[in-house]
Amino acid sequence: MLGAKHPPNNEHIDDNMVKMEVNLDDISGEWLGYVMDLLFEAGANDVFYSPIYMKKNRPGILLQLLCSSQKLDKMKEILLQETTTLGIRYYPITVHRMERRFITVETKWGMVTVKQGISTKGEVFQSSPEYEECKQIAKEHNIPLKKVYAEVWKKL
Amino acid sequence: MLGAKHPPNNEHIDDNMVKMEVNLDDISGEWLGYVMDLLFEAGANDVFYSPIYMKKNRPGILLQLLCSSQKLDKMKEILLQETTTLGIRYYPITVHRMERRFITVETKWGMVTVKQGISTKGEVFQSSPEYEECKQIAKEHNIPLKKVYAEVWKKL
Amino acid sequence: MLGAKHPPNNEHIDDNMVKMEVNLDDISGEWLGYVMDLLFEAGANDVFYSPIYMKKNRPGILLQLLCSSQKLDKMKEILLQETTTLGIRYYPITVHRMERRFITVETKWGMVTVKQGISTKGEVFQSSPEYEECKQIAKEHNIPLKKVYAEVWKKL
Amino acid sequence: MLGAKHPPNNEHIDDNMVKMEVNLDDISGEWLGYVMDLLFEAGANDVFYSPIYMKKNRPGILLQLLCSSQKLDKMKEILLQETTTLGIRYYPITVHRMERRFITVETKWGMVTVKQGISTKGEVFQSSPEYEECKQIAKEHNIPLKKVYAEVWKKL
Amino acid sequence: MLGAKHPPNNEHIDDNMVKMEVNLDDISGEWLGYVMDLLFEAGANDVFYSPIYMKKNRPGILLQLLCSSQKLDKMKEILLQETTTLGIRYYPITVHRMERRFITVETKWGMVTVKQGISTKGEVFQSSPEYEECKQIAKEHNIPLKKVYAEVWKKL
Amino acid sequence: MLGAKHPPNNEHIDDNMVKMEVNLDDISGEWLGYVMDLLFEAGANDVFYSPIYMKKNRPGILLQLLCSSQKLDKMKEILLQETTTLGIRYYPITVHRMERRFITVETKWGMVTVKQGISTKGEVFQSSPEYEECKQIAKEHNIPLKKVYAEVWKKL
Repeated sequence: MLGAKHPPNNEHIDDNMVKMEVNLDDISGEWLGYVMDLLFEAGANDVFYSPIYMKKNRPGILLQLLCSSQKLDKMKEILLQETTTLGIRYYPITVHRMERRFITVETKWGMVTVKQGISTKGEVFQSSPEYEECKQIAKEHNIPLKKVYAEVWKKL
Repeated sequence: MLGAKHPPNNEHIDDNMVKMEVNLDDISGEWLGYVMDLLFEAGANDVFYSPIYMKKNRPGILLQLLCSSQKLDKMKEILLQETTTLGIRYYPITVHRMERRFITVETKWGMVTVKQGISTKGEVFQSSPEYEECKQIAKEHNIPLKKVYAEVWKKL
Repeated sequence: MLGAKHPPNNEHIDDNMVKMEVNLDDISGEWLGYVMDLLFEAGANDVFYSPIYMKKNRPGILLQLLCSSQKLDKMKEILLQETTTLGIRYYPITVHRMERRFITVETKWGMVTVKQGISTKGEVFQSSPEYEECKQIAKEHNIPLKKVYAEVWKKL
Repeated sequence: MLGAKHPPNNEHIDDNMVKMEVNLDDISGEWLGYVMDLLFEAGANDVFYSPIYMKKNRPGILLQLLCSSQKLDKMKEILLQETTTLGIRYYPITVHRMERRFITVETKWGMVTVKQGISTKGEVFQSSPEYEECKQIAKEHNIPLKKVYAEVWKKL
Repeated sequence: MLGAKHPPNNEHIDDNMVKMEVNLDDISGEWLGYVMDLLFEAGANDVFYSPIYMKKNRPGILLQLLCSSQKLDKMKEILLQETTTLGIRYYPITVHRMERRFITVETKWGMVTVKQGISTKGEVFQSSPEYEECKQIAKEHNIPLKKVYAEVWKKL
Repeated sequence: MLGAKHPPNNEHIDDNMVKMEVNLDDISGEWLGYVMDLLFEAGANDVFYSPIYMKKNRPGILLQLLCSSQKLDKMKEILLQETTTLGIRYYPITVHRMERRFITVETKWGMVTVKQGISTKGEVFQSSPEYEECKQIAKEHNIPLKKVYAEVWKKL
């Protein structure tokens, strides 16, 4: 049921990932907010920015993204079309992913999905309430988001 | 003509690049401003700083630089002489560079070089007016830099 | 009992506070880690650093501190003696502080103090387990810190 | 017509603004993304975060917001309910706002609103295409956002 | 003699200073490097940038500058002409400046000016070799900058 | 004698190091301060944080650590237990370490160890007074830390 949205994900070492990096000093923050969304929509596993100090006193941005090697060309295409760079650097990176399991918890405002991390020994070592579901409850019931999380944690 | 300063640069994958990194918590910003210039003068392709949080509550700096593997020893020498580090880390990195072409655009204040990125299909997907030339016009004619860029963009 | 360490603190508007600021580009992170401790020991309400981009390509640090106006001279003295600045800027700032109350919660590893924020209407809107106590339990019992917090939250 | 959405805004000095600040070291980035939206919805003129170095080696966040003094209590309420702080600081701040005017520009993909800044002498010194409109065109026509902006700038 | 370049500067409290702030999310780092220089040339006492997180996932820049209230209008003019903002905020700030004295130190490569801070009791509590002079020696004699500073410190 | 604490360390290229990275947007700064200490205690060569901009307007933290490949599993264990991540990425990295030598310098307040970097040609190119020893002297004698360093530098 939940499985449709959230396929069970076993622990594994993924040797097929690539980290890409671009330095940007001639693009506005406005455009960068847009680019991040596009890269996620196109299948990037993660995209994030860091503030960097570049030559000639320029505050710049280091764009980093993580994707599978199959996505490399698609990501390059977006980066060239949507940013101002003429070059893209990358290197292979290994990712160790833990087993994930999704359970649901009943709160007074309805069900909330919780993502759990399962250790090699089978223990639950991580429990994260799904942000979008908690946010929706907070909005609908006009309560602080932290109260929704607190309720979920108590029910675990 | 322009070719002398700006040799045409074809699209290629460069597998000969190295990323170097140094963590610094016992050097002043004053010296770091100087080191960046030295590294560029010695042939680094790029040099940039990020703020990092180090042990014992220390605000530190992560120096990153990109250079060809032939430059590795020269860069090490400068980093050891001019910073306070005793160790330097590095790893190979691939760079995909697009074709670059330089054209000139006529503005009411004179010619301005524009660097263009050419896609694999031959399309112009990037056009960057040369900063130093625009800056010089802005200074000489006492006009805002953004007006110079706006004029160049209109003429493209 | 707890009151000795943690006097009850009623909601109030404090108009007697000062924010101080110093820009630093000629001091190492090593020294700054030390200065922060000294300022707290001397009675600063808060001290924190931000990364800033200063002239001549220098990565610098903005030191900010919050203290009562009675502490202004003491703070100046430390800043002049321990940093490299020749000037210190400051301005008055108003602080609205909520009522604080300290309760204790029993966990399987012992008692933990929880700081609570009480709203104007008397509601508990904030509950923060004391970090140092949770840390000590985590260390002594060799368990993850997040497990200690989770246990305290459940007991609230 | 446009005036309904965008009332003409004359140049003025606004002496009725307040800057609020909160230091946060015990809240997740996930919640902070949510809080920013809430504060804007409740009428903050601006909300932004800076990375700060806090005591005990903690990477923290400085939340800053700008609002009119009439909004001060509303903002306090949200900050107390949705973040983990027990205290909020603030100080008056003056804002000099330039005259704004909204014009529309016709592109091959439709009309785009452009916000213009008008100087005391009546000159247009700023022209910003509306981001949401450009974004929608880029999405609908499947073209790079930067192409949409370039088209608008050419038509100005 | 030195006095011409460096007038003796007695300890004083300056109540005539203003801090100005602008949030920027639609300007490139390239232009910001240029703006900083212009503001210093026009008489700003200090100008610096901080990375900020703005709405819609935008990495932005907070520009801060410090100037005397007489310079306020000049600074506004540059900010409006050279950045993309339509509003500028500011507030008064007090600056406590210590007495400065300039001495010269003889090194094997020539004289170097050292700026000293003098405490209320007449003690030297700060000694900063002039960066530009040390840099020039390092360049001319092809020696590490840190060696030049080390030599000056030894001679003090 | 010192050798026990500080074994002489010859210049070498270490090909056995690993850089690990974790992106974190659902953990507080409070916990991160604790995690850094644990990772160092467990044998990490370095651990540091950078502020990053993550999706949905979240200010996040990039945790980076450097360790030998033998420590990889130990580090993973701590990261999974003490942070909120479900995945850890890493890649091999080469470290060039210079020869280190420890000497002692006599000051008026007692002996201070100085760590020196020795170049391939046998020259001393780096001299760093040991922070913890200088700090202890500063505390015991109630003098500014910078005076202790200045004294050590003069005696070198």
